[in-house]
Amino acid sequence: MKEYCVGADIGGTTIKLGLFRSVGELIYKWSIPTRTEDHGSKVFGDIRDSVMSVLEERGIDINEVEGLGVDVPGPVLPDGTVNKCVNVGWGVVKAEELFSKEFGGLKTAVLNDANAAALGEMWKGAARGVNNVCLATLGTGVGGGIIVNGRIVTGAFGAGGEIGHMTMNEDEEEMCNCGKKGCLEQYSSGNGIARLAKLKLNEKDCPETSLKNYDEVDAKVIYDEAKKGDKVALELVDELSRYLAKAFSYVSAVTDPEVFVIGGGVSKNGPIVKEHVEKFFKEYAFHASRNARFELAVLGNDAGIYGAVKAVLDKE
Amino acid sequence: MKEYCVGADIGGTTIKLGLFRSVGELIYKWSIPTRTEDHGSKVFGDIRDSVMSVLEERGIDINEVEGLGVDVPGPVLPDGTVNKCVNVGWGVVKAEELFSKEFGGLKTAVLNDANAAALGEMWKGAARGVNNVCLATLGTGVGGGIIVNGRIVTGAFGAGGEIGHMTMNEDEEEMCNCGKKGCLEQYSSGNGIARLAKLKLNEKDCPETSLKNYDEVDAKVIYDEAKKGDKVALELVDELSRYLAKAFSYVSAVTDPEVFVIGGGVSKNGPIVKEHVEKFFKEYAFHASRNARFELAVLGNDAGIYGAVKAVLDKE
Repeated sequence: MKEYCVGADIGGTTIKLGLFRSVGELIYKWSIPTRTEDHGSKVFGDIRDSVMSVLEERGIDINEVEGLGVDVPGPVLPDGTVNKCVNVGWGVVKAEELFSKEFGGLKTAVLNDANAAALGEMWKGAARGVNNVCLATLGTGVGGGIIVNGRIVTGAFGAGGEIGHMTMNEDEEEMCNCGKKGCLEQYSSGNGIARLAKLKLNEKDCPETSLKNYDEVDAKVIYDEAKKGDKVALELVDELSRYLAKAFSYVSAVTDPEVFVIGGGVSKNGPIVKEHVEKFFKEYAFHASRNARFELAVLGNDAGIYGAVKAVLDKE
Repeated sequence: MKEYCVGADIGGTTIKLGLFRSVGELIYKWSIPTRTEDHGSKVFGDIRDSVMSVLEERGIDINEVEGLGVDVPGPVLPDGTVNKCVNVGWGVVKAEELFSKEFGGLKTAVLNDANAAALGEMWKGAARGVNNVCLATLGTGVGGGIIVNGRIVTGAFGAGGEIGHMTMNEDEEEMCNCGKKGCLEQYSSGNGIARLAKLKLNEKDCPETSLKNYDEVDAKVIYDEAKKGDKVALELVDELSRYLAKAFSYVSAVTDPEVFVIGGGVSKNGPIVKEHVEKFFKEYAFHASRNARFELAVLGNDAGIYGAVKAVLDKE
């Protein structure tokens, strides 16, 4: 194993980069903008140039680098082909091959961002030392990463861990971004709970609630008011939590994880987030799995680069 | 790899046994009764005596046997401990250790019966050559087996693949054997569809149906009449199929299998079984996974011994 490793977490506006010691120590992190023009074709060269100049500054030769791990906000097939990544401008792109070429044949791994976050939290975060894990990131949508025997489950069609699109409510009338109706992320994401709040506050018989004092009601406002005991806010938190708990119980019936990790922006509202989910989980789960552990993610925005690095280190 | 391997499939009334060539050829199969008295403690010696005498008859020395694979109708922890197996009379039993001891330290693997069936169908059956598979056995209940990267997912609490206990209907009033209400197996098993038929036929406004001509309406009768076009029978088949398809879509969002295999008694009703499930699956599944393949199991009652043998051959 060579001494260094590089991780890149590609988002729609920013690419986060990290230089690691291969033992898992993040020694320097920085970021560059994501240039999405020309179908995102500049991303490859931009990452190469930026990484090479950081290595040069530090007197590190590329031959001392074990590999490059990259995570992207879209589905990735088992061979490292990205199957459409709208935010970056990519269609079907052989990303693993292209990155490796940019870096002169360097070992490269490309994976989905929620999968990378799961792997990062398993390696150096909330699920350290556990090899059967489910992570859900509650942000704009709901992302998911499933780990079995210490490895990410990519899936036959790159959709392993896409728990955000489990159909949870057949009576839903609004459409999810994916084209279906009633997906988990319509309820248990930051946008989802804000949507539920809007519906609730517009109901004729909506009870008195401090949520009415805000111009914009988002997940943070709802959790803040729930902590103060506002009944409507608590109902909304319960609704988010009940849907997520039910989805987690389905995950239990498939891979039966030891630990569920909740990450993403919504998780920043603290222990209340996992406590409510855990409560409902016990109702839905098969008895054998009822005592699975619940944790909040701890690596924050660095989870992706940690996981990307872990993925390339694991690669044979 | 030694030339022979032995598989044992333990059921509540019968133990099926198989002598295999380790390449995967079943050369002789037989069965003995399951003696459940004394908390099922006789099962270990009974299997040893029967296997040893079959080996002796054929002039095979135990040293030519690679291992013993055993599957049981209950949850099995990753270390081969059976966590209650009511039908056999076992409580918490270190089955793997006990079997190995009976056979003088022979390499032994113990696994859940639905998991074994999945592994068998992957090795020599309907999912041959595929390494990401979900199998559901529709019998008295609904069993499940999940394969990722060619290996069974046992789960942290031995509940990997327990898809029969996904909570599918929160309005259900009858209780499942597991103590919850609204589990998949209350709808999509042989007993489940018979139960739905009873409820339907007792409804005041139940339309005219040929099902009323039978003293006892079971899965076979329902599928037979559905094939002939009976509307009520078709509705019941659709109800079973819709619940199973939804559960499969949840599996897709977790491990994203390439192939779904349907086995167990209900699957003997032919292609209609998978066709209806596949139709509804396309409604519920995330777009990336919508073209997963559906197959009926082909190994029948031998799936367990095939899978048990595969499990012990895979063991390091």
